[in-house]
Formats: sequence, structure tokens, C-alpha cells
Amino acid sequence: MVEGIGASSGIAMGKAFVIPALEWDFPEKMIDVADLAVEFERLYEGIQCSKTEIEHIKHEIAGLIGEEESTIFDAHLAILEDPVFMNEVQSIMQRQYKAAEVAVRETIDKFVGMFDLLDDQYMKDRALDIKDVGNRLLKHLLGKLESPMLPIDEPYILVAKELSPSQLAHLDLSSALGVVTMLGGKTSHAAIMARALGIPYVLGLEGKLQKPIQTGDYLIIDGEEGIVHINSSEERTEEYMVRKREWASMREQLQELAHLPAQTEDGVMMHLAANISSVKELDLVVKNGATGVGLFRTEFLYMDRDSLPKEDEQFEVYKQVAERMGNKQVIIRTLDIGGDKNLHYISLPEEENPFLGYRAIRISLDREDLFKTQLRAILRASHYGNVKIMYPMISSISEVRAANSILEKAKSELTEENIPFKNNLEVGVMIEVPAAALIADLLADEVQFFSIGTNDLVQYVLAVDRMNEAIAHMYDPYHPAVLRLLKLTVEAAHRQGIPVSVCGEMAGDIRALPLWLGLGITDLSMSAQSILKVKNSILQSSLKSSVLMMDQLFSCKTSEAVAGVLNKHMQKDMLSRTLAKKERQSTQDSLQ
Amino acid sequence: MVEGIGASSGIAMGKAFVIPALEWDFPEKMIDVADLAVEFERLYEGIQCSKTEIEHIKHEIAGLIGEEESTIFDAHLAILEDPVFMNEVQSIMQRQYKAAEVAVRETIDKFVGMFDLLDDQYMKDRALDIKDVGNRLLKHLLGKLESPMLPIDEPYILVAKELSPSQLAHLDLSSALGVVTMLGGKTSHAAIMARALGIPYVLGLEGKLQKPIQTGDYLIIDGEEGIVHINSSEERTEEYMVRKREWASMREQLQELAHLPAQTEDGVMMHLAANISSVKELDLVVKNGATGVGLFRTEFLYMDRDSLPKEDEQFEVYKQVAERMGNKQVIIRTLDIGGDKNLHYISLPEEENPFLGYRAIRISLDREDLFKTQLRAILRASHYGNVKIMYPMISSISEVRAANSILEKAKSELTEENIPFKNNLEVGVMIEVPAAALIADLLADEVQFFSIGTNDLVQYVLAVDRMNEAIAHMYDPYHPAVLRLLKLTVEAAHRQGIPVSVCGEMAGDIRALPLWLGLGITDLSMSAQSILKVKNSILQSSLKSSVLMMDQLFSCKTSEAVAGVLNKHMQKDMLSRTLAKKERQSTQDSLQ
Repeated sequence: MVEGIGASSGIAMGKAFVIPALEWDFPEKMIDVADLAVEFERLYEGIQCSKTEIEHIKHEIAGLIGEEESTIFDAHLAILEDPVFMNEVQSIMQRQYKAAEVAVRETIDKFVGMFDLLDDQYMKDRALDIKDVGNRLLKHLLGKLESPMLPIDEPYILVAKELSPSQLAHLDLSSALGVVTMLGGKTSHAAIMARALGIPYVLGLEGKLQKPIQTGDYLIIDGEEGIVHINSSEERTEEYMVRKREWASMREQLQELAHLPAQTEDGVMMHLAANISSVKELDLVVKNGATGVGLFRTEFLYMDRDSLPKEDEQFEVYKQVAERMGNKQVIIRTLDIGGDKNLHYISLPEEENPFLGYRAIRISLDREDLFKTQLRAILRASHYGNVKIMYPMISSISEVRAANSILEKAKSELTEENIPFKNNLEVGVMIEVPAAALIADLLADEVQFFSIGTNDLVQYVLAVDRMNEAIAHMYDPYHPAVLRLLKLTVEAAHRQGIPVSVCGEMAGDIRALPLWLGLGITDLSMSAQSILKVKNSILQSSLKSSVLMMDQLFSCKTSEAVAGVLNKHMQKDMLSRTLAKKERQSTQDSLQ
Repeated sequence: MVEGIGASSGIAMGKAFVIPALEWDFPEKMIDVADLAVEFERLYEGIQCSKTEIEHIKHEIAGLIGEEESTIFDAHLAILEDPVFMNEVQSIMQRQYKAAEVAVRETIDKFVGMFDLLDDQYMKDRALDIKDVGNRLLKHLLGKLESPMLPIDEPYILVAKELSPSQLAHLDLSSALGVVTMLGGKTSHAAIMARALGIPYVLGLEGKLQKPIQTGDYLIIDGEEGIVHINSSEERTEEYMVRKREWASMREQLQELAHLPAQTEDGVMMHLAANISSVKELDLVVKNGATGVGLFRTEFLYMDRDSLPKEDEQFEVYKQVAERMGNKQVIIRTLDIGGDKNLHYISLPEEENPFLGYRAIRISLDREDLFKTQLRAILRASHYGNVKIMYPMISSISEVRAANSILEKAKSELTEENIPFKNNLEVGVMIEVPAAALIADLLADEVQFFSIGTNDLVQYVLAVDRMNEAIAHMYDPYHPAVLRLLKLTVEAAHRQGIPVSVCGEMAGDIRALPLWLGLGITDLSMSAQSILKVKNSILQSSLKSSVLMMDQLFSCKTSEAVAGVLNKHMQKDMLSRTLAKKERQSTQDSLQ
């Protein structure tokens, strides 16, 4: 058994198929001056083939796992068009009379070495991109070294040192049972793809194996725990078979809950809406019985393209969502770019601390053209369903007022143009900057609803970037300071009589349920995948016991204590349920 | 008159001396294969001379304006030792038979071009470093193009397109009346040096001049307003002469306040301590009558060196400060690296958002070796004065407890080793993470004092990096959310009976005085330069009027409103004082 890092959950069992690392071994071929023109021709052809291939892969990936993930290939195309890179290749050919593939290999080695030297994760990622593109170009120049054929007769667990985006695309990950790599991180493209496809993935085994995994080894991988068993005993295999079946059966049982109301044992009705990024997700949203779309992240409409989406394009998408959801509410959040999401066709400044930078509403208020177009599209869609608007990253009432005044302009324009829209459509704000939570009473006077974005709120209040591995353990949604900010926000909203929901990842964490119930929050929005799991917990919760917990929860001095109270409650509840069931059974037994 | 950006305040008047931009114009000299060895010899000699020169400059700069500023030259030395850079130079010489200076120039152009292409401020700064080092090396290879001789018979105002660190060092900035550059930013090394030397500096004139400034032009520069007058009228010159004299006389009058108590008109005594980074600043601290050192930033002891400072080294520094301050308190803050301050000999991770990353106490708690050494040094120094310890970036009571347990270990060790220290030395925390302010009541149970670090607190609560030009205008210490956090913190401290001071830049802003008085804060710590200005304001303030303002201040909904109240108060106060003075005068006049 080896312990790595779980990057995509689920259990997979099957034979390993090991992909050898790509190595180039060809002679230092020189060329004659007279052949230089022909050699250049060969280089350009190779580049052209590579580009066509990348475009093709990009398109396939977009269909397979979503457009946002396919943007990595734009970076690859850019490298093939990069003058610095290409000048270097040409100069080696021209000055040193080396063959195209030799020049390409030297240039790759040089750039990769240089970027690796810089000791900067961004640069190291660029190095991997260059390696990947370079390998593709070499493949076309040498006309060999295709990716290994995968066995088609039998499903397999893919094993590799690392997986580049190109390899992933070629390997048709969707037919793999699972993936294991020696290197890579939880946020690598391979990990994102595996999660999107629902394929178990364990990574980070480098230096932990006594001997390398061989093709044909029987593997059991547990993507939740990050564990890999190699050629384990029959007993162990049996055990995992059972676990796998349990997992599948649990999923089936949960699916039956989809169209039941999310009501606590003592009759409190909760509303579980979905966070979505694209229309494609709506099937799952409907299937899992979401009560609406609590957060439509519109930035993904702006990504993977070369210019801003036109008003009509946006309108069509918003309208589609509104119509599909019928009278259920659809909260459309205006553009949230910046931070870790950039648009290559809008020049944003390079920032030392992008999370504390130029992003979301800060950009929208600066770029009225862009913002008003989006607002017009949302307003037009409001005619076709139950649409609401939400502003992200609000930190002051001045920002709300500035945004609303642009909204009013958009409304006047539409009125003048005789285009229908819902005039009294509701406007709300994300509570995700600590300042917003601290002045929630003032903001509540300005808007019709709040949605608490716990991800950013926790990051800012604790000054912890949760993507930063060195301190990720400090990202702590159960910190007493977070609880206090949540309470401040909810109390301000209730006093003002406006609804408040939660749409960060905490909303999908069943441990937090008593906290929401106790605070009086009955609206949650989460990924469509989480809805059934949370509903299952709600059916077993009670308002009464949650309210009783509040004093204890809010007198905790540390997050460990908070987590302790919540965990104990969860266990106690499960325990009392189990006991009650057993009691009923034994009563029945004795009656028989 | 031209308006630029004021980078260092003060008024300077005098003739311009224009430094021409460095340009290299030499032929594409080729060398014979037979001379290659000699040419390499010449290259190595040039590198050696450059290194010696850089070491020399670094030493001089350290003496002139402080060690922390001299570290830029370490980056320069690193470039001369960088294998990628040097391999490129050698390969051009070896493969293309070009002379050393030609190869160096080509390599500079290539790297600078490449880094400039990356559209990343960090990389662009690296490009300037490479240009600077490259120019130095070229100078040695060509044996000419020394920096221009500056006129020594007459003081001058230095004018240049931009100033690299090397040029600055050579130009002996301290003999200049002022500086004007076309390019550059407020946080450039030139700006930092000018401020450290107290020389007025205006930058950012690029594209604003109708014709270029010539050597001999008569300039008046106002570094506060960012204004440059070129060959202005005699009237204007007169006007600035007066202003300059007023400024000087005001400074003299302020100096007389140094040894008066900082007492409000109605008798409230405030304590104005100094923030320091090194022992060198103590002269000014004492001269300006600081009541202690409210914040000793120890990270500067760790900078500009190749290894961690030993316990004895640190002890000597802390002891010197403690002894110099006598019975006045000296609050030593433990290491605050990370964020924007790195130590090249400690490998810290590259971070996407360093301000939300691995820094300060987070590193200290991970590196007990490093932390305990510092705590031992501080404890030993506590025997020689009124020393206290302060932990930076605290966000939970668990961190305080973990830090204190290492402190206890350090104490036990010293006790065992029979080394004297103050056993009951007080321990406090910075309140700079929003979470700390929100749980100030819990933290107050664990420590003996608070110091509010407004700079970081404001950044985090508003999610605004104030170094980021795109959103710097949103960095707003007078945001209602900030005021509420300050109030929370102070009330918690007062309820628990522990002292609370302010040590961020807000402490030196005289507008904030009524806020401190109204909240009940009487301890401020600021740069030694600000103490007299703030004391002057305190002498004209009153507790009564400040307390009366509080309701108004805390009912403001926007920061504009808060600033409005504070500004109006300041004007009203000045107005009433002026009126009172006039009245007294006219009474005296009528009596005569």
C-alpha cells in the first residue's frame, strides 16, 4: 500500500497500464547551406501540423470537459507563434547549420532550463507548456514516437510519471478506470480533468514506491483517501469490491431524494439551489431537484474566446437558463474576472496579489461599456423567467450605488428601444469582502438580497490564500471570526427584512447545517453534485437541536472547538438515529 | 510649469544638470579563433572588475542610506554569476567569433527583450537590473563612458530620463538639491533613496514637456505637489523662496516641541513612540522626543546577508536599543518576513498572493529553530531595558499559545544556563488580520497588550493591495468597516484592561487624532519623522470635542462622509484657533 494525494475521489480497481516518459534520442544532424531553405520549409510544415493538431485537440477537449479547461491549448498555440522562441530555433539553424529537430530540441532545453531556474511556479508551468509543445513539434519533424497505443480490450488504470495536457487529450482519459501519477498537484490540469470526468486519481507517489509500478500490476486506488494498493491480497480486493458497491448503492438511494422537499425533521423547509458556470450543467441541476440557480458565474461566457461576448450572445444564454428554470429563481452574478481568472483580450495589469487586486465589480465599474452590455443582456432575459442580478466583490455602498446607476441607464435604454424586461427585478450583492459583512446593515438598505460567498470571505478575514499549499491548512471556515461575521451579516439582513443565502463551498458541507439552521439561513446554493447529499442531511436535522447548539458554538474560542461541537452533533445525531432504529427493530423482534 | 508625481517632499531651487541617457555605439568587432582565449580572459577581467565595483557601491550605499536599500546590488552580483546569462555570452563568442563587448550587448538585448515581452512587472524590473549590470560590464570592456562629471562648484538639480541603482550610487545624490526624472515610480529605488536623504524628487514628466530640460535651466521643484517650474518668473521664484523659508522655520518651531509632553488642550496625555528598523534611527528617535520604541521591525536584521543572524548578533542589537531607550518601553516585533520581504538564504515558496501567504508568525511557528533563537536574543536583551515582545500576523489564539510555548522553552533554557532575563516580560500581538480584530476579546485573555497595524488591517478588510496602482485609490483607512473593527478591538482591550496602541501609518495621520482620542487610544507609534507634526496637533486637540464627534463619525455610511467629518473638524479647529488668536491680538492692539 502506498499513500499519495487524493486528487479525484472514487474507487477504481484494475490492471495498470504504464505510459513511458517521452525521451528523444536522435543524432546531432547537420545540414548543408544549400539545404537550408528546404529545412526551413520542413520546420514551417511541422509548426503548421502542430497548430492544426492543437486546434483539433482544443475543440475535442472543449466538448469533453468544458470550454474553460480547453484554454490551456491557447497558450500552446501562442508558443508556436512566439517570436523569441522561433527566432532562437531559426538562428541555431541559420548560424550553426543544425537540422530543424536539433535546433528545436536545443531551444526547448534552453528555455525550459531558464524558466526552471527562475524558481517561480508560474514560470515552471510555462516550462511544462514549452516542453509539451516542443515534443509535439519534434514528433511532427521526426514523424514517429506516437503516443503509446492503449489496450482497448480491457479497461485499465493509467500510470505515468506526469501527464501533460496533450498526453491527457490523446489518451482518452474517459476510457480509463483511474489514474496514478508520480508527480503533479491537486490543481494540475490532469487533476481537474479527472474530477470533471469523475475518474478516481491519486498523485504524488514520487519517492514512495519500493519498485516502480509495471504494466499488468493489479491496482486498487482510493481517490478519496489518496491510497494505492499494488497486487494486494484477495481479501483486500473483496473489501474494496464491497466498498465500491456500497458507494454505488448509496448514490442510487440519494437520487431518490431528488424530488422530495428539503425539510428538517421538525418541518423547516430549506431551499437548495445550484451554482452553475454554463448551460450544460442545467441537466444535472434539474435532475437533482435544485430549487433554482443561486449563482450563475457568468465569467465563463467571457473565457476561451478572442473578444467580449456581444449583448445578443449573452442574452441567449441567460434566456436559456431563465426559461429552463421556469418560475424558479435564477441569480445571475455579473462578471467576476481578475483574481485567478483573466481574459487574454482584455489587458489587465500584472499583480503581486491578484486576490487583493483589480477584479470583479472593480473592473465592471471602470469599464461601463462592458458592464452595461452585460446588464442589458440580463435585463432582457428577465422577461423570460425569474431572474435576479448580483454584484460580486462589493466592499462599500458607493460601489452598489455606482453599479445601480449604470443599471438604471441600461433600463432607460431598453425602455426607449421598446425592449421588454422586468422593471422591478431584484438586485443583490455577494458578501465576500470582510468590509461588506461589517457594514451589512448599511448594505441591506441598498439591495434586495445577500448571498454570502464563504470562499473569499474566509480567505480575506484570515488572510489565507487557500490555493497556497504552504498555508492551506490555515484556511478555516470554522474559525470563530468567520462565525461572527456570518452572524453579523445574517442579523443585519433579518433586521432589514431581506433574504440571505450562502453560496460558498461551506453551503455544501453537511457539518455546517446546524449553523445555517441556528442562524436562520434556509437558502443554500451549491454545486449540483452536492445537493442530494445535503438534502439527505437536512431530512435528518432539526431546527430545535440546531438552535440549542448556537450558544455552545458561539462560545468556542478556537476553530478546533467549533469543529468539535459540529462533529459531535453529527455523530450524536447519527447515533441516536441508529439507536432508535435498533429499538424499533428489537420491539418488532420481541413482538414476533 | 509641469505637473508630475511628487516622490519626495520639499522645495528645491537651482540650475538643472541633465544626465544623458547611456547609449552604446561601437562596431560589430569580430575576433580571430586564435585570439579567443585572450578574449575570454578580457571578459573574465571585466566581470571581476564589475563585481568588485558592485561590492564597493553596495558597501557605500549601506552606509549612506541603510543596509536594506543596498540589497538591490546582490541581485546584480547574482546576474554576473548567472550561468544562463554567461553561457549565452560565451556561446556567441565561441560560435560566432564576436568580440566580448558585442556578445555582451547582444545578450543584454536578448534578455531584456525577452523579459520585457513577458508583460510582468517583476520581469521588467529584472530587465532593468540586467541592463544596469550589462552597462557596467560594457563600461569595463570598453574602458570608457564613465558617468558624467557633476559640477562641483555649484549645487544642482539632477535631471535624467531614468536613474538606475548604479547611476544613483555613482552620482552622489546627497550633494544634489533635488531630482527630476521623466520615468520611474514612487516606489522605485531612486524615490526611496531620495526620501531617505530628504531630497525633493519629482518624477513622471515623460510626454509632458514641450521641450526637454537643458543643463543650466533654472528649476523650481515642489516634491510635495509634484510640480516643476522651468525658467520661471522672478515673482514665482520670490514666492518659492518665501515658501522655502516658511518650511524651514516651521521645522525649527516643531523641533522646539520635542521635549514637551504630548498633552491635549484639556489635559489628556498621549504617548508618541517610534517605529524603527535599525539602531541607526535611534538618534532621530531621541532627538524628536519619542516616548519609546513602539515597533522594532526586526526583519531588517535578517536582510542583506547570507545566513541567519546568530543569537549573539541579535542580542547585541536588541540590547543596544534597550539600553539607549533606558526605562522607556521597547516593543520588539518578531520576524515578519514573507509578503513583500524575502530572505534569499531561506527558501520560501513562490506565491500567487504573498500577502495572503506564508509570512511572519506562520513561518516562525514552522521554524522553531529560527524563532527560538530570536526569542532567546530578545529575552536576554530584556535584562538591559524595558523590553516587550510582539507577535505579527496573529489570527487565532492557537497561534498565540503555540508562540508562547516556544517562548517558555527559551526561558527554561536561559534559566538553566544561568543567563539573566526579565521573567515577567510582557507579550503582545499585532492586530492586523481582520480575524484578530473580530476575536479581540478572546485574544485579550491571552496577551498583555495589543498594537493595531492599520496598514495590513485595512488591506485585508477591504481586500485591497495598496501597492497595486490599479486599485490603490480604494485603500481607504476611513472606511466605516475599518472604524468598526478599530472600535471592536479597542472595546475588547479596555474591557479586559490591557493597553492598545496604533502603529500603522494612520497613527501618523493628524486627521485621525479625534478618532484615537474618541476611542480612548492614547498610545501611538509612528516614524520618528512624524512625531513632532503629530505632537503639534495634539497640543491643539481636545478630548471633549473628539468624544462629541464619535456619534457623527460612527453614523457615517461612506468613507467620504467619514473623511468629511474629520476634515471639517480639522478646519473648524484651525479656524477657531486663528479667530481666538486674532481676537487676543486686537484686544492687545486696542489696549496699546
